[in-house]
Amino acid sequence: MTENNLSQAMIPEGAEILENPNGTAPGILMEECGRMMVLLPGPPREMKAMFEESVRERIEKKSRACVLSRYYHLTGIGESAAEEALMDLVEGQTNPTLATYCKPDQVLIRVTSSGRNREEAEKFQENYDIIIRQRLGEYLFTESKDTLPEWAGKTLIEEGLTFASAESLTAGMITSTLAEVPGISSVLRGGIVCYENPVKEKVLGVSGETLRRYGAVSEECCREMAVRIRAIMGCDIGVATTGLAGPAGDEGKPVGLVYTGICTKDGVRVEENHFRGTREDIRVRSMNKVFKMFRDYLKERKTV
Amino acid sequence: MTENNLSQAMIPEGAEILENPNGTAPGILMEECGRMMVLLPGPPREMKAMFEESVRERIEKKSRACVLSRYYHLTGIGESAAEEALMDLVEGQTNPTLATYCKPDQVLIRVTSSGRNREEAEKFQENYDIIIRQRLGEYLFTESKDTLPEWAGKTLIEEGLTFASAESLTAGMITSTLAEVPGISSVLRGGIVCYENPVKEKVLGVSGETLRRYGAVSEECCREMAVRIRAIMGCDIGVATTGLAGPAGDEGKPVGLVYTGICTKDGVRVEENHFRGTREDIRVRSMNKVFKMFRDYLKERKTV
Repeated sequence: MTENNLSQAMIPEGAEILENPNGTAPGILMEECGRMMVLLPGPPREMKAMFEESVRERIEKKSRACVLSRYYHLTGIGESAAEEALMDLVEGQTNPTLATYCKPDQVLIRVTSSGRNREEAEKFQENYDIIIRQRLGEYLFTESKDTLPEWAGKTLIEEGLTFASAESLTAGMITSTLAEVPGISSVLRGGIVCYENPVKEKVLGVSGETLRRYGAVSEECCREMAVRIRAIMGCDIGVATTGLAGPAGDEGKPVGLVYTGICTKDGVRVEENHFRGTREDIRVRSMNKVFKMFRDYLKERKTV
Repeated sequence: MTENNLSQAMIPEGAEILENPNGTAPGILMEECGRMMVLLPGPPREMKAMFEESVRERIEKKSRACVLSRYYHLTGIGESAAEEALMDLVEGQTNPTLATYCKPDQVLIRVTSSGRNREEAEKFQENYDIIIRQRLGEYLFTESKDTLPEWAGKTLIEEGLTFASAESLTAGMITSTLAEVPGISSVLRGGIVCYENPVKEKVLGVSGETLRRYGAVSEECCREMAVRIRAIMGCDIGVATTGLAGPAGDEGKPVGLVYTGICTKDGVRVEENHFRGTREDIRVRSMNKVFKMFRDYLKERKTV
């Protein structure tokens, strides 16, 4: 054991030790004269988990007010447009306060109110809830902090829909990101990462004719990929991505051209996309687009 | 166009506009009385790219001193142990300065020196270079900021080694992370994400007998996965992962038990691992372990 690690075990007299499930340095909690002092480890992964597990409830118990946050997660609209739609709520308001956060392809709206108790805090939010739904309801995919992939993973589990992917430019990002969701093994069958054309043909079973005639980055290829993966894996939802993440274009096609597809019992659908940004942006947007198409499928299915 | 977006186009008179390849807000650069003022966009992805492309060289030209950083990236040793091995260099030194950074399974050492010119700055680093190699050389995988996956991707390209993976718990993370490296398409064939056992058997071709007798989380299964993926994809390097990321164990096996395998023309090798941490930690460590095994393979191959 190194000196550094030993010094992590030094605890002030009378202090409480907080367990660290994700690292070696414990947390420390001290109370005196009605004040609470909390020492957390530096790495965000360790700090956040420890705060949620050992600290949040302790602080909430001490607080005389109830602070309540509600989340609205949107996709298909930019942060500027979302903010502008709610400008009258953002300006001059103190309870609740409203903030927007931008992630790739997703805008998170947080509404935070405080009251003497939960009921009062909730009451302050009612009006905002109605307005946000009226103005932005069509973009709402979940009322939580869950990202699109997290929402998709949880929804697949809830609906019991089995899933598999055929990924070219995303190269396993879709399945790997879904696999972050605990419990996904009940619905995630697997996938074929067909980065190279021969893999698309020989392992996935896209026809050589399609590849020669239209190229790998084509609506036709994407369609066959989605259909084939659903057949091979025998699952409810088969998705596919093929496109050019850059740095260079190919087959006379530009960087950012991506086809995304989804195959279900109701048929197959493919969309052509033109994404901007870095290689990584284009790959992440392709993944998110697949999850958006899954959301569209669920909406359409439900309204029938 | 929203008001927000329009306001991004407002530029002070006489200022220089810096192009933003990754977003809408441009950067602004102003010089007056020998001082330079730079305004960059907030999102780190946009800010960093703009700094590297449009700002760094401008600042360096203005500076009278040459500041030089050199990197050593280690794996197989903890941050505390690496720091302790270099404690005498860390303490009391001002030129060069030495700092260590910890990422999952990787420790990055940065040595920064300054001099009147490049030669002088380099000279100050010579001694440190010798000492770091002597004491920590066995853990060194690259002299750059490249992470293990980035190093692996670039090395595969340089060596012209074709690659494919059979991934259970990592679920496509290995191929997806490699796909972040530009130019990887020359060597990355693809992979099979075999999250579910029937996919391991029917798509990848692991024998049903092995799965029934030893279970999916076993040395035997991992070995077959590595061998099969190399055969199916016809590539130089086939790797495999199978294990339990949690939250719950399975088949009476504990969370964190992971088998990682690599199959090359020289044979197949499997290692049993017991990883700690969150579900995500365990998956990332499994991926990194595969790249470490690839590094070990290259080292052994070269010394023969």
